[in-house]
Amino acid sequence: MSQTTLIKNVLLDGNTTNILIEGNRFKHLHANANTHADKVIDGTDMAILPPFYNLHTHAAMDILRGYADDMPLFTWLTEHIWPFEAKLKPEDIYWGTKLAILEMIKSGTVFFNDMYFEIDQTIRAVEEMGMRAAIGVTMMENHPLATREEKMALLRNWKGSDSQRVVLTTAPHAIYTCGEELLRDCAQLAAETDTRLHIHISETEQEVKDCLKAHGTTPVRYLDKIGLLGSNVVAAHVVHVDKEEIQILKRRGVTVVHNPCSNMKLASGIFHYADMMAEGLSVALGTDGSSSNNNLDMREEMKMAAMLAKVSTGNPTCLSAQETFEWATVNGARAFGIDAGVIAEGKLADALLIDLNNERMTPNYNLTSNWVYAADSSCIDTVICDGRILMQHRHVEGEETIIKEIRNRYK
Amino acid sequence: MSQTTLIKNVLLDGNTTNILIEGNRFKHLHANANTHADKVIDGTDMAILPPFYNLHTHAAMDILRGYADDMPLFTWLTEHIWPFEAKLKPEDIYWGTKLAILEMIKSGTVFFNDMYFEIDQTIRAVEEMGMRAAIGVTMMENHPLATREEKMALLRNWKGSDSQRVVLTTAPHAIYTCGEELLRDCAQLAAETDTRLHIHISETEQEVKDCLKAHGTTPVRYLDKIGLLGSNVVAAHVVHVDKEEIQILKRRGVTVVHNPCSNMKLASGIFHYADMMAEGLSVALGTDGSSSNNNLDMREEMKMAAMLAKVSTGNPTCLSAQETFEWATVNGARAFGIDAGVIAEGKLADALLIDLNNERMTPNYNLTSNWVYAADSSCIDTVICDGRILMQHRHVEGEETIIKEIRNRYK
Repeated sequence: MSQTTLIKNVLLDGNTTNILIEGNRFKHLHANANTHADKVIDGTDMAILPPFYNLHTHAAMDILRGYADDMPLFTWLTEHIWPFEAKLKPEDIYWGTKLAILEMIKSGTVFFNDMYFEIDQTIRAVEEMGMRAAIGVTMMENHPLATREEKMALLRNWKGSDSQRVVLTTAPHAIYTCGEELLRDCAQLAAETDTRLHIHISETEQEVKDCLKAHGTTPVRYLDKIGLLGSNVVAAHVVHVDKEEIQILKRRGVTVVHNPCSNMKLASGIFHYADMMAEGLSVALGTDGSSSNNNLDMREEMKMAAMLAKVSTGNPTCLSAQETFEWATVNGARAFGIDAGVIAEGKLADALLIDLNNERMTPNYNLTSNWVYAADSSCIDTVICDGRILMQHRHVEGEETIIKEIRNRYK
Repeated sequence: MSQTTLIKNVLLDGNTTNILIEGNRFKHLHANANTHADKVIDGTDMAILPPFYNLHTHAAMDILRGYADDMPLFTWLTEHIWPFEAKLKPEDIYWGTKLAILEMIKSGTVFFNDMYFEIDQTIRAVEEMGMRAAIGVTMMENHPLATREEKMALLRNWKGSDSQRVVLTTAPHAIYTCGEELLRDCAQLAAETDTRLHIHISETEQEVKDCLKAHGTTPVRYLDKIGLLGSNVVAAHVVHVDKEEIQILKRRGVTVVHNPCSNMKLASGIFHYADMMAEGLSVALGTDGSSSNNNLDMREEMKMAAMLAKVSTGNPTCLSAQETFEWATVNGARAFGIDAGVIAEGKLADALLIDLNNERMTPNYNLTSNWVYAADSSCIDTVICDGRILMQHRHVEGEETIIKEIRNRYK
């Protein structure tokens, strides 16, 4: 018999109710208050909301937080980030990911779509901490850490995670780090292994210029031509695209991941909110890595997106609180086929309990508005992932050890 | 003999030290650990930073948080905000301001420059809660709550606050709500009463268009012509200005208050970061009221400003973490002649203690970068204003009562 958890007296869609979780799914949204359960959570003065699904990050880069800021992209990458990364050891990836997961849990995220190196370390950190993740097997030409064949074999031989919370993705880094043959092979490999294909597309103007020079066309058209775009593709950034490219992405069923903080901090450019929404694209939100953000806070990412959407379009109705919330929750879950992202009977039990006595949540005319525009991580009391409590009363098991290790190992 | 407080073992500018506060000022930044003090704070694993000075808000509007969002400015104002405000009673102003002050303390702010109505209520709330404030005597044509003469008398007869933490300002609302005679009278009144003059300038394109129509020139030129601009002027927004207007503001010594969240949420426009900085203008940060933000979080405001500056100028070096930090701290204090905003001997003892064990503050390569780009309110352990502890271990005295009242009175 599966473990049961009863959340008593919690606010759901404006009404107080008792919610029963059985195993890793929501069993009843309106259970009797006396229902027997293995664990009971007092939800008084709390609201239940779906948590965040962070659709693009490089989690281990949390250990590069604040290492280099406020400089041109090329200087930042070549003189600071890459030299630091060249010295990383497997245990750095492990501890960086642990810190990132701690930060994500504390800010209400239960899933991240990662692209980095040393994935054994990432998988280990995720499994230990109870989150969900899609972990990219990163493909680049002349990759220092593994041959292309080794990586392809890794994907082909992957038996799945015991917890079923971890999946792998085929992750060709970008068109400027992967040649056409590698990109074609990745598309085929993703199809063969039934994995999502995670890639950076059209992040900067330079990428588009270089693509025009090398391939005589723009990145989306180029990738479409070589047969890479499909409904399994999760494309990060997608800043510099024209309307026809947006239509191509729509036609192919690509999920576009918007990373407002990163695009703003690196001055990469402004997302085409109006056109993306007019075409009805599936858009999800991501934080990118901590070195270009500098946190993994999806609540902040929601506000940043909504604010930039309004001011850049000159339209205060663009990207409403509700739409932003969906980008950060259900759209992300859907892109990875995770049966969650809304609080509903039968769905996977991923949830946040939000403290309605927090000053930022009062008055409560509109919970979604408060959550997107006014809240911060201090409003989150409890984080539940796959039916398990990962944080309660703002405490995550083992957090002191992680912080101590990070402070000992880095600065 | 004044009360003394010793903050032991705290990080200041990269070194661990003991800081002695005597009365309301920093006495020694490198005191002996055994110094006798009336109160001792353990600063282990904490950094001391100057707190925030919020240079433009309408504090009591905290009770309108989330009441109306995502709509065109005119609909928002005329169909939602103004009808709500028309029903406000003095006790609403009191409780709204109490909630706002609670929210500001919890997010690290010790001073706000306010513009609203029923200032007796605002003053009462500020004095009770120990913050600093500059409270605007709001001037508008045909103001429903007090005649112009009554307000002018109020400013002339103000004897100062017992605590010396509260000052009044002469606050003509804007050029579209005050006629030329009233604006001229305000300039004279501010000079006569030695108060700052707080006004909205060039927030929207419409304001500029209307000004051109009514006065044949732009808002800054118009205000300069009628003699209103001087070094006592604190001008909120200042979005739609040309280079010559920025030079006029510089020449007159006006402090410009940037409110990025509000300007973005209402799609008012993008601040001219590069030109403002090139001219060396004194810029401070403000949150505006909660109904157009929807919080009073200056840390979030810092990040929003820095991000928008970079992406709007296409320059990732624009508005560095350090510059943003100064806009939010010392620039605001200086504009009001508050001898604070930096941690230095002899300065007023306004300070924050930041938890270095918070996941967002680790690793700590660059404290200012972490504070501006990565932190949130959960990183703030202690808030000190005028030598008094307003928050310790994230608890503010009486906060439960404020939340209870707000939840009973509103929604």
